[in-house]
Amino acid sequence: MGKKQVMVPVNEVDLTEVKYVPEKFETPHLTGFWFKLFVKVMEAPLIGSLITSHLKQKNGMTEILKNTVIPEVPMFIPQFPLQDPEPGVVCLEEDGKPEERVDLALKCLPHYDPSSSWNSGSGEPFRFRYWKIRDYGYAYRSKFTTPSMFISAIEVLNDKQPSAPLLISFDPKEVRRQAAASTQRFEEGIPLSILDGILIAVKDDIDCFPHPSKGGSTWFHEVRQVNIDAVSVSRLRSSGAILVGKTNMHEFGMGTTGNNPNYGTPGNPHNPKRYTGGSSSGSAAIVASGLCSAALGTDGGGSIRIPASLCGVVGLKTTFGRTDLTGSLWEAGTVTIAGPITATVEDAILVYAAILGSSPADRIPLNPSLPCLPDLSSNESSNILGSLTLGKYTKWFNDISSTDITDKCEDVLNQLFHLHGCKTTEIVIPELRELRTAHTVTFGSESLCLLNPDCEDGKGVRLTNDTRTNLALFRSFAASDYVSVQRLRRRIMYYHMEIFKKVDVIVTPTTGMTAPEIPESALEVGETNLQVVASLMQFAITANILGLPAISVPIGYDKQGLPIGLQLIGRPWCEATILRLASVIEEFSAEYRKKPMEFYDILKVK
Amino acid sequence: MGKKQVMVPVNEVDLTEVKYVPEKFETPHLTGFWFKLFVKVMEAPLIGSLITSHLKQKNGMTEILKNTVIPEVPMFIPQFPLQDPEPGVVCLEEDGKPEERVDLALKCLPHYDPSSSWNSGSGEPFRFRYWKIRDYGYAYRSKFTTPSMFISAIEVLNDKQPSAPLLISFDPKEVRRQAAASTQRFEEGIPLSILDGILIAVKDDIDCFPHPSKGGSTWFHEVRQVNIDAVSVSRLRSSGAILVGKTNMHEFGMGTTGNNPNYGTPGNPHNPKRYTGGSSSGSAAIVASGLCSAALGTDGGGSIRIPASLCGVVGLKTTFGRTDLTGSLWEAGTVTIAGPITATVEDAILVYAAILGSSPADRIPLNPSLPCLPDLSSNESSNILGSLTLGKYTKWFNDISSTDITDKCEDVLNQLFHLHGCKTTEIVIPELRELRTAHTVTFGSESLCLLNPDCEDGKGVRLTNDTRTNLALFRSFAASDYVSVQRLRRRIMYYHMEIFKKVDVIVTPTTGMTAPEIPESALEVGETNLQVVASLMQFAITANILGLPAISVPIGYDKQGLPIGLQLIGRPWCEATILRLASVIEEFSAEYRKKPMEFYDILKVK
Repeated sequence: MGKKQVMVPVNEVDLTEVKYVPEKFETPHLTGFWFKLFVKVMEAPLIGSLITSHLKQKNGMTEILKNTVIPEVPMFIPQFPLQDPEPGVVCLEEDGKPEERVDLALKCLPHYDPSSSWNSGSGEPFRFRYWKIRDYGYAYRSKFTTPSMFISAIEVLNDKQPSAPLLISFDPKEVRRQAAASTQRFEEGIPLSILDGILIAVKDDIDCFPHPSKGGSTWFHEVRQVNIDAVSVSRLRSSGAILVGKTNMHEFGMGTTGNNPNYGTPGNPHNPKRYTGGSSSGSAAIVASGLCSAALGTDGGGSIRIPASLCGVVGLKTTFGRTDLTGSLWEAGTVTIAGPITATVEDAILVYAAILGSSPADRIPLNPSLPCLPDLSSNESSNILGSLTLGKYTKWFNDISSTDITDKCEDVLNQLFHLHGCKTTEIVIPELRELRTAHTVTFGSESLCLLNPDCEDGKGVRLTNDTRTNLALFRSFAASDYVSVQRLRRRIMYYHMEIFKKVDVIVTPTTGMTAPEIPESALEVGETNLQVVASLMQFAITANILGLPAISVPIGYDKQGLPIGLQLIGRPWCEATILRLASVIEEFSAEYRKKPMEFYDILKVK
Repeated sequence: MGKKQVMVPVNEVDLTEVKYVPEKFETPHLTGFWFKLFVKVMEAPLIGSLITSHLKQKNGMTEILKNTVIPEVPMFIPQFPLQDPEPGVVCLEEDGKPEERVDLALKCLPHYDPSSSWNSGSGEPFRFRYWKIRDYGYAYRSKFTTPSMFISAIEVLNDKQPSAPLLISFDPKEVRRQAAASTQRFEEGIPLSILDGILIAVKDDIDCFPHPSKGGSTWFHEVRQVNIDAVSVSRLRSSGAILVGKTNMHEFGMGTTGNNPNYGTPGNPHNPKRYTGGSSSGSAAIVASGLCSAALGTDGGGSIRIPASLCGVVGLKTTFGRTDLTGSLWEAGTVTIAGPITATVEDAILVYAAILGSSPADRIPLNPSLPCLPDLSSNESSNILGSLTLGKYTKWFNDISSTDITDKCEDVLNQLFHLHGCKTTEIVIPELRELRTAHTVTFGSESLCLLNPDCEDGKGVRLTNDTRTNLALFRSFAASDYVSVQRLRRRIMYYHMEIFKKVDVIVTPTTGMTAPEIPESALEVGETNLQVVASLMQFAITANILGLPAISVPIGYDKQGLPIGLQLIGRPWCEATILRLASVIEEFSAEYRKKPMEFYDILKVK
């Protein structure tokens, strides 16, 4: 029996006494035969529970879960205090038509000058730019091209052997049908919105009829039918988007590398021997490769922001309750949201405007704040930027081995100050270890609840070794552990709401490392490498356990040419502020973006 | 691996197809040596989990928790749709002064005629009446007696050897001090409210300074200090009540008989060889014995209503969120509330008015309804009664072995119709087995979370065998089980809110049996008898898992002279309606109440 700990009530914690404790994971990195053996041992009745118990003890989980008196009452779902309205925003109607919200979002964007996209500039060095949604819109409206013409590129994907791992469900006939309908609308001069004809991919855990939702597995569609679009997908559809298919993902979102032995592990568009990050691996890679303007992802532990960061694109995690998860695998969860992955911030704004709209009122009790967008078309924006304060917990921020990442992130903060007057101030965030435990237990238990009826004993169904390892750990959590970590959630919320009284945004690197290598031996059987997982998730999970909005914006490359992302975590419901900041960061730091490899290069990886 | 089940979405369930499934528990009744052995086996590492697993399988829990797809999203805390206001009520201010609420409550009561209490009536047969709070108030104000004079009766308790099991913490000096202060106020003509000088006992899991809060254990006060009154207790104190001490209870509320080997098992005032019911055993017995006008109890699975029913007094479970649990052992729970146990309905109204006031807003998200009381002083009351409809699920109502109970309950329904025009209509409540599982897992996990830091391995501390058995079961619940049953909670809430569109109140017997015998062998080591527990809790837990208000009102006696209680379950926040009904039921069914045994007879039991 461990020694009993008693936590001080959260409002009595002395922040000057808080010590930063670096994360240490004493677990082996296993692939191939040893990983398969490890999984079998983990699932063995007695020895398995001894091992999980030992691992939890070593990593300090047992102490927090069993031996600690936590004086706060549980917070089962993120609950936020009332927020002040954000300055310089345009509010949207949650219950309105998605296409009308997109129209309003379009008006919030800066003036569109086609020449900036269509000419390389006079005398400027060559610069690579993704085609933005407005570029497509301009091309369609100017009759340079039609939505149908873009389908052939996607079709190449499907004709390749072995089949492409970016889209794991793809029906060219169905896509052509959508494209033809969109082309027809443009011919008739009645496009539905700026999203009309835009190619958008959907992560495999969000329903997109008539595709199955497998969650990256080989069988989940057999036990869960898809009869209609998820709410977020139907909003994109009614805005005219062409839904190209379902993207590859880390099986059931239970990993952050993107490894998937079922369909092949997608290669990073910036280096196919590297992971894309996950779990929204295919969504980030298909956008980074330039094949789609946008993709939907889900984010329960960084699953949008991590792959966006590793692939050099933008990933937006919305406030919990801001999007409706009906029709996804995660409708019953308390940490996961749906959000866009796009090449640019303005595209994220357009897709966000389309998909937003909270879950039914009986699910999320408190949503007092209207969804807003930053008005980037007005001159006021620079004044607003100058009024913002960024919070940085330096010990945490710097607790990564790559100085490339910290240096680039520091550069951005300096430029934000010099160009726009945004001040950075030091903050302290206590109980980060408790936060990790709270997230693991919450996410794990809610995922297990989804999978239990079909994988009760962990075997008998075709799960990847990675999922099986995770389920063995998740099965070891007791019901009282779940309640305990909800008490921790209330503490962690308190600390952050105190911080947000002083700062507008918390800034961190998105990940503790750039895209990790894919071990050859991990392609067939997966791998377990908790150091990598922890480093990828290091800064992500706060926004999940607390339901806060957060965005990853690409800010450059490390010495190996791999993308680096910066994360902005906003106040509850304040997506507008982080979008505004992300848009200026993108402007000065991602202007000269590296061209990712052509998509057919990516297809070589399997 | 069990066979997978898929539940139909709750709004598609065909109620005409619902089959009532009687409860069956295939577990042994154990006391003495065999019980002690059983506990040791349950706590043994491997065999213990095999046994719990087998028991859960047999009782259908595993099927619900692991093999069933539940389409609804979790409801972690009771959330209610908006309710129509109740007719003929007086609304109270939650944030106002308790004594002002008590004054308002007093105005809601029917005219007080001292002669009805002070004379046995002319020519009427002898009838026993408890002294009501207004009787004491009249006596104090008429200077017949003083609060101080009543203390001697309580002091007898303390002088007895062995010490009385009704109050397990009692300080005569402290009580005399309070009584003297009250007497002084009466002398000066400035009593604080009708509760001034009224003797009120407090269950041992609610803080009442300077008493320790042991939760019926021998040691919990060593790990949890009491420095101030619980919120509900401080409200009573500021209304002038004399807080006489802490009442005996089933250890940590983990049982419904009232068995307590630590302090002795209180005997039922109507038959000392019978249990009082629990867990608020001492609270119900001290009121039933006439020693106190009221006692506070807590109710997480019937713990107020069950002992009230078995002891022939009134027990009110308030809506979840209506009372503030700050300063009790249960502040972090989602099923437990604090409420009054009193001899009469009008006393319940007075005490309820004093203690109500919701928990802090950050804890309970939705509390749109003002607390109200029925205006029993107006002539309107009979019209209102005639407009009420009672719902009765006959198969459930009759699924008990004692026809005495069902007959008496039926009588009451008939009289309600004939005297007051209240109609009873048939209802169907699906998924009662799921409800039981949801309650066990929720209550168990939340209790374990409280006790874990001090009893992590179930031994090493001095817990009763009963608690140890329960903890062994509760430890076996997985975190995903907790999430699953919150999904069931949303289903069960849906069914009940549909029912409450058609009926105002659901009516059941309070318990499936009258006071059970105390086996001689259970006094020293406790017992496990799941049949008894299940029968006592059969009708109680709905109000806990859904947070609904409910009241038990005494309606007579079975052939053995043991009290029978009727339960009224109200719409969320609608305490006023059930109090109004309870008050007329009491009028016609409990008029000639049996005199319980003198309190010193009770003291003989240990």
